[in-house]
Amino acid sequence: MEKTAFDARYQEYLAAIEDYLNSLFAEKPHWADLYEAMRYSVLSGGKRLRPVMTLEFARLCGLDWHKAVPVGCALELVHTYSLIHDDLPCMDDDDLRRGKPTNHKVYGETLAVLAGDALQPAAYRLILTAPGLTDAQRADCALILANASGPDGMVAGQVLDTLHHPSAQDELTEVHHLKTGAMIAGACMLGVGAAGGSEAARKAAEDYGYQLGLAFQIRDDMLDVIGNADEFGKPIGSDKDEGKVTYVDLLGLDDCGKLVHELTEQAVSAVSDLDRDGFLTALAESLTERTK
Amino acid sequence: MEKTAFDARYQEYLAAIEDYLNSLFAEKPHWADLYEAMRYSVLSGGKRLRPVMTLEFARLCGLDWHKAVPVGCALELVHTYSLIHDDLPCMDDDDLRRGKPTNHKVYGETLAVLAGDALQPAAYRLILTAPGLTDAQRADCALILANASGPDGMVAGQVLDTLHHPSAQDELTEVHHLKTGAMIAGACMLGVGAAGGSEAARKAAEDYGYQLGLAFQIRDDMLDVIGNADEFGKPIGSDKDEGKVTYVDLLGLDDCGKLVHELTEQAVSAVSDLDRDGFLTALAESLTERTK
Repeated sequence: MEKTAFDARYQEYLAAIEDYLNSLFAEKPHWADLYEAMRYSVLSGGKRLRPVMTLEFARLCGLDWHKAVPVGCALELVHTYSLIHDDLPCMDDDDLRRGKPTNHKVYGETLAVLAGDALQPAAYRLILTAPGLTDAQRADCALILANASGPDGMVAGQVLDTLHHPSAQDELTEVHHLKTGAMIAGACMLGVGAAGGSEAARKAAEDYGYQLGLAFQIRDDMLDVIGNADEFGKPIGSDKDEGKVTYVDLLGLDDCGKLVHELTEQAVSAVSDLDRDGFLTALAESLTERTK
Repeated sequence: MEKTAFDARYQEYLAAIEDYLNSLFAEKPHWADLYEAMRYSVLSGGKRLRPVMTLEFARLCGLDWHKAVPVGCALELVHTYSLIHDDLPCMDDDDLRRGKPTNHKVYGETLAVLAGDALQPAAYRLILTAPGLTDAQRADCALILANASGPDGMVAGQVLDTLHHPSAQDELTEVHHLKTGAMIAGACMLGVGAAGGSEAARKAAEDYGYQLGLAFQIRDDMLDVIGNADEFGKPIGSDKDEGKVTYVDLLGLDDCGKLVHELTEQAVSAVSDLDRDGFLTALAESLTERTK
């Protein structure tokens, strides 16, 4: 796919996603402080990689992709809650996220915990009231999200990462598979689920997401060494400061770069039957050289 | 309903609930510590009031109540996560819950936050894979849970309670409505939703739950003054120690007692058409004199 065509579609998806997210929690109930804390993190930018994947898979499976926006954004809310909680003092204790003060630095720990807590049911509400989907599609999507983010997905990965000090390569791979892979694979599968796509498409989405999730995380480890703090949005070297063993420690930068490319090829190969005009391929390849 | 018949049915429900909860997170994955922390709080007893209500409303709406067990227990998981997070140092900072050390006292803050986080998707997973329900019933139940526990339900109440220092009676009522009422009403509505019951039954369940939720919370305020710490499972006077204004401060014990009875009568009246053999009435009345 031509870069201009890729960029145009990405921007079209991104605009729809930002518009939709911006419409959430805009009212002012008595507890407007909760809404404000939720909005602060939900609207703090980011690439919106996950919902973009949801929209493209939905489109490829024959759905008007606009109908998948609430579903993709639901996963983005869950991703956002996980970032808020990951940054807490009792977790990674980070002050900066995407170049801005973390949620608890702005709103305090109490509200940060609660904003994260509220984003989870808010996400399911978006899926379960998504216009134009059947009950079966809604139920399917809600289950995909629950599996991706639950005690055998993202949270399991976070437990291993934070408390188990993974150091061998298979341990790191398991952490990334659960913590990052499950949610990226979930985002892809949500598009298939929203569209009522085939089992083959679901399997392709899952494989694409998991391979890309691992590549994404290894690239993250690399950026923690070679990145630019302003662009990356957080301090360089924080993994080392936190005593974390990364892929770069185990393989070195060069082999990490090669592995990112290999995983990206595998991801692309998984969707070869589905990726008719090459958006998923271009997306995967764009991530190999990302700097933020 | 005769007390022995009431007790027998309550015990039958309770046994099914405990059996089901006991079957959860029993495997030993690499992240068995997460499972253990989740189980610690999920299995720490309690009256299981909420899932009992789910089962009775499901039965009254014509469902084999056994099919509603996963749905009722899902709400109990969400209730449990809220207790774990409420007890955290950055919330109420409590050391004891139901007479046992709180989750973070046993497992540390990091794992307590994550165990709470994981219980939410785990709850949706139970609903969305509940055997014997249609997709429409599953989607309906998942939405009821999301509404009850979300940023316009339980978490909103927790924000007001923890951060807004409610002191006038209408402020306290709003807190209890959101923090306690929404989840008890949600438990009742889940039974109707699982059974595919009528709109009238759903409205009755909602009213019953909200009235009873408020009565429950006022009784809680009373027990914080007149209770027995061993029976109540937490220190007496903790509301005062935390500087919280309660219904007892505003109305005095006698008028609180009267209000509990009035609200209970209203709850009973809301289900007069539905409560064929009087279980809901007996349940409501049993709560007015509870000591734990």
